[in-house]
Amino acid sequence: MSYVIGVDLGGTKIEIGIVDQTGKILKHMRLETDVKGGAEAVEKQIFEGIRYIQLETALPIDGIGIGVAGQIQPRTGIVQFAPNLKWHHYPLGPHLATELQLPIFIVNDVRAITWGEWLFGAGQGCQNLICLFVGTGIGSGIILGNQMLIGCSNTCGEVGHMVIDFHGPVCTCGNHGCLETFAGGWGIAARAKEILKQNPTDIANATLLEMVKGNIEAMTARLVIEAYHQGDVIAQLVLQRALQALTAGCVSLVNAFNPCRLILGGGILDGLPEWMPLIEQGIQQSALKAALQSFAVVPAQLGKEVGVIGSAAVVFDQLKNKEK
Amino acid sequence: MSYVIGVDLGGTKIEIGIVDQTGKILKHMRLETDVKGGAEAVEKQIFEGIRYIQLETALPIDGIGIGVAGQIQPRTGIVQFAPNLKWHHYPLGPHLATELQLPIFIVNDVRAITWGEWLFGAGQGCQNLICLFVGTGIGSGIILGNQMLIGCSNTCGEVGHMVIDFHGPVCTCGNHGCLETFAGGWGIAARAKEILKQNPTDIANATLLEMVKGNIEAMTARLVIEAYHQGDVIAQLVLQRALQALTAGCVSLVNAFNPCRLILGGGILDGLPEWMPLIEQGIQQSALKAALQSFAVVPAQLGKEVGVIGSAAVVFDQLKNKEK
Repeated sequence: MSYVIGVDLGGTKIEIGIVDQTGKILKHMRLETDVKGGAEAVEKQIFEGIRYIQLETALPIDGIGIGVAGQIQPRTGIVQFAPNLKWHHYPLGPHLATELQLPIFIVNDVRAITWGEWLFGAGQGCQNLICLFVGTGIGSGIILGNQMLIGCSNTCGEVGHMVIDFHGPVCTCGNHGCLETFAGGWGIAARAKEILKQNPTDIANATLLEMVKGNIEAMTARLVIEAYHQGDVIAQLVLQRALQALTAGCVSLVNAFNPCRLILGGGILDGLPEWMPLIEQGIQQSALKAALQSFAVVPAQLGKEVGVIGSAAVVFDQLKNKEK
Repeated sequence: MSYVIGVDLGGTKIEIGIVDQTGKILKHMRLETDVKGGAEAVEKQIFEGIRYIQLETALPIDGIGIGVAGQIQPRTGIVQFAPNLKWHHYPLGPHLATELQLPIFIVNDVRAITWGEWLFGAGQGCQNLICLFVGTGIGSGIILGNQMLIGCSNTCGEVGHMVIDFHGPVCTCGNHGCLETFAGGWGIAARAKEILKQNPTDIANATLLEMVKGNIEAMTARLVIEAYHQGDVIAQLVLQRALQALTAGCVSLVNAFNPCRLILGGGILDGLPEWMPLIEQGIQQSALKAALQSFAVVPAQLGKEVGVIGSAAVVFDQLKNKEK
């Protein structure tokens, strides 16, 4: 039996777990991320957490995978930029490799999650899939021909910034009409704010305004979804457009990439499970028939532990490739 | 030295050439496609053309590549659907393999062209590239991680049907606001027709109307481009929007796929060479900075012979992979 350690490194918490070859977490711990302490302090937290789990379980470890919300240099294991951690160009991989004397794989968190769903979740046995995560932003991991796509500078899969309305609203990236501006969590909140600001005294806006006690800037996607489920008209307007946009984005993905499976997950979709069949229906109606010959939409399967399992899956996959 | 035969099979002509390992065509012939004669007649044309070239050159042939405008079953060599040839499910590959006793590779024509640019043209030495062809429609071939992307049902790269305006005009595919509807040749003509029909007596429309002698349905992208180069205002309006749309589509490609090189070709861009620097500038302004770390826009290089060279390139690449 082979074991690896998966680490999910975020701006608020660090999750560390030991995972077996079937994707099962055998032991697991959680720490609050010491962002204020700086990169060295966080690295020490990870090091000590791994040491603790190694001692507790006394199992042989083949390698360590770490998923980080940020840009990673894949070959060197340097964290190029991690906004939540406030890290710039930090050599986490090289440091831990020296300290732990084990193979270390640092990857972007969305890609780690995709690896997890591919090996142990909704993507098992599938050679062509896209894992699309709709949270505050929209990101994806893409596997075609049984290979995780990386791209030229390791950013392949940034599909939240596909343009779906080239005259559309400004995005955080500076461009106009990116998928995120309508269907990402921040975009849903922004579109709601826009409507409220245009006409703050309109009776139709009363429910949403009440929810934020008149402070429009406090609007969030979570509140819009809550109001939507209570039948609020403005929330329906915003989310109807978000659904249209998300469906259009999924059709673009199916036409451009031709996956066999589209795995959908993330906080926004967790809050709107009724969207899943609507998105599938929209894709079946609007994507190219030749691209749909063998296609399905499926929900992400691994739940809250996907970060740890996914980071571990990276190690299993990379070590397997090395053996070839 | 190794030689292969490349065949470019289209609805109006068949081009056949013998190509060496450097991508040079040593002997070349062209036939009018006998579409009316049916699939058997066209197959006979190809067979006899290949035989003729074999006899004329007396060179040893390692295999034959055939690029077809249509959907291909990659493993079987069956032409699933080729609208210009009026073929449905025709086993061209198996037939020729039996008749010629040589390895036969049948591929979609856009993918063949991409293979040609990759091995012998603007994509040489590049492991991550997109070849985007803007003609009547818009298609692409995509290479990531040194692999031609195929997808689940062999349709990966149909980027003319990425949605760039989800409230946009109806596409030939039935969806709304596909890239083609603004920037493909048929889309440029359709947008011009739309304007002329809305206001056929407007003085601004006079030049375009004159070009088609008042018959709006006769409008083509070629005429719009001609009028644009003469300074016509309506043509400028249509093509300005086409350029915006095409740039937005290219930004989507760069963000979603993260290629190192975007190779641009096709009839529309051949007619508008001044667009090339504008598209590159637009991408540099609007795509994600992390995706642009090592990125360039380059024009397609192989010119009119790309179909034959590309079909031959497929064979060189596939035979090389088999040796591994």
